[in-house]
Amino acid sequence: MKIDGTAFRSLWLDETDHWSLRIIDQTKLPWALEMPRLATLDEVAHAISAMLVRGAPLIGATAAYGVAIAMRADPSDHALQHAITTLAATRPTAINLRWALQRMQGVLQDHPKPERAETAYAEAAAICDEDVATNRAIGKHGLALIKSRATAGKRVNILTHCNAGWIATVDWGTALAPIYMAHDAGIDVHVYVDETRPRNQGASLTAWELGKHGVKHTVIVDNAGGHLMQRGAIDMVIVGTDRVTNAGDVCNKIGTYLKALAARDNGIPFYVALPSSTIDWTIADGLTDIPIEERAATEVTTMTGRALDGSIATIRIVPKDSPAANPAFDVTPARLVSGLITERGICAADAASLAAMFPEYRTQEAA
Amino acid sequence: MKIDGTAFRSLWLDETDHWSLRIIDQTKLPWALEMPRLATLDEVAHAISAMLVRGAPLIGATAAYGVAIAMRADPSDHALQHAITTLAATRPTAINLRWALQRMQGVLQDHPKPERAETAYAEAAAICDEDVATNRAIGKHGLALIKSRATAGKRVNILTHCNAGWIATVDWGTALAPIYMAHDAGIDVHVYVDETRPRNQGASLTAWELGKHGVKHTVIVDNAGGHLMQRGAIDMVIVGTDRVTNAGDVCNKIGTYLKALAARDNGIPFYVALPSSTIDWTIADGLTDIPIEERAATEVTTMTGRALDGSIATIRIVPKDSPAANPAFDVTPARLVSGLITERGICAADAASLAAMFPEYRTQEAA
Repeated sequence: MKIDGTAFRSLWLDETDHWSLRIIDQTKLPWALEMPRLATLDEVAHAISAMLVRGAPLIGATAAYGVAIAMRADPSDHALQHAITTLAATRPTAINLRWALQRMQGVLQDHPKPERAETAYAEAAAICDEDVATNRAIGKHGLALIKSRATAGKRVNILTHCNAGWIATVDWGTALAPIYMAHDAGIDVHVYVDETRPRNQGASLTAWELGKHGVKHTVIVDNAGGHLMQRGAIDMVIVGTDRVTNAGDVCNKIGTYLKALAARDNGIPFYVALPSSTIDWTIADGLTDIPIEERAATEVTTMTGRALDGSIATIRIVPKDSPAANPAFDVTPARLVSGLITERGICAADAASLAAMFPEYRTQEAA
Repeated sequence: MKIDGTAFRSLWLDETDHWSLRIIDQTKLPWALEMPRLATLDEVAHAISAMLVRGAPLIGATAAYGVAIAMRADPSDHALQHAITTLAATRPTAINLRWALQRMQGVLQDHPKPERAETAYAEAAAICDEDVATNRAIGKHGLALIKSRATAGKRVNILTHCNAGWIATVDWGTALAPIYMAHDAGIDVHVYVDETRPRNQGASLTAWELGKHGVKHTVIVDNAGGHLMQRGAIDMVIVGTDRVTNAGDVCNKIGTYLKALAARDNGIPFYVALPSSTIDWTIADGLTDIPIEERAATEVTTMTGRALDGSIATIRIVPKDSPAANPAFDVTPARLVSGLITERGICAADAASLAAMFPEYRTQEAA
């Protein structure tokens, strides 16, 4: 998508050396557009764990390039295993990370070492191109849902949580792909953007990318969505996800579950947009089987933004002696999900429907 | 309750002149404990509208003293009406404000003008003393609920939203009164404190007053409560309210409804603590009949806290071109409320139970 008229992907190979990775540092958005260069495995791992890149699909794509960068430095079996292990440990919840690393390992492990780097770069590039195509397909299927609501020129109001936009993927986004397509098709679409505490990905990333593309939007605090649904201000909810079980349970940014409950209570459709790489075919029960990342309390007790003098400042917002807890994700049970918007179409959130849409993935028994 | 060992109420008459009002400026907490002096009607009205004082019971008590201060300056009928009108316009949602002003008007309007000021001060003092007694009674009834959960030395985990503590009332608080009593009785109680965006009354006020009293607590973002309930980390929810209808619908700080939905979905009791002055006997349907205050977008787009250098700083956290909406309250339908903890006991949230507990308030037809 575009930033001030220039088309971008959210990661790309450095234009000069053609092997190191360039990313957009999302911890600096919306205040600064910085594009650091990652040239070592450790730099890539840090970029993921410190959330310079985030969003399940983008984490997977970045990790794939991390393997490639590691293979360029040392194509040994030991280095390959070290890269996989290091990158897998960066974030525990998103399944795309594991998916991408397994794919890289599968391609590389029986491959001659002299060709490993070249093959790894090609595979990472393929993962990225496939991600873009997948998200474009998600967008088209979701667009039909939005169109069906845009009767008689009525504005369609969509609530989203966190950021599942183009900067959470390689391009287009998942939850926002249908919204970009609706906007580009001339549909009057307006997005209520959940702030998404504690890291404010909604206020800082979703609002930023929607604004840069010209999509109408309003930022609200996470507390406000239920009230707006009660008042008829929201027509549908679309969110992304970090992991979906084979039974349709949805793990996504903390707070998603609360919005799903409110949507159900008010008869509002609640959709989850995802590439099929986000489905964890090995598990059924999201509540028992998905590890929930517990992040640092400082994400809750402090807030970063732009001070009056234009500088970026971090302030403390909790009394110094008060502890804080910071679970980063929650699980929305499949019963609260109206549908899963995948690259193949829209699918009910249940085991039979998922198996029918993706017959090649036989549900595996958990190890 | 106590601040660093010294007993306080949240408002009192100035120790020197005995007629102007002293309050704790709650916009400065938890970073500074300032006690400004209010000596005119306009200063009192501003303290309410700018939320130097907030919390439904405290707003009512402060407004009562505002009338007294106005009567001291000018005991005319015109001045009385002007004071009532001015104070009634400060906040639209909390019913206690209207209740306190109607009570002051009822006492004063047929009273000889030379005695109006003295009578007004006496009535305001009575409102304050009654508030303390009411909240103590609420605390005792709520304490029984907590005790019933504290079996075999098991810690009782309670979630609360916003601030319904002693600084939201004259003393004790509503939702926090049972918690203070449980703590003082040696029950192992722990409070999950919702941050309560956008004004962060949970993180800044509830955490502060619990900490000053020594009550164990953990601050969480508003998004986290549903997840914690799913995981069995929360035994009960207790919140305050700004207005309850005669049918038991509960208007409270934005986001309360989402926690009530999560509590219901997880079989966790959801209690609302309130003095009966918070009940609006003229209305039944909270969704249609309670005006919801829409506050400034800057409360969403900015955040205030303590900078690294110790100064108090305000930062912007939303891109400058992104609009924001800021509804301040929502309505939790009575069907989601396990019980209303009142000064007379615990009451089901329905018209018949409320009428049986408060037979002297015949439900009035809305005008």
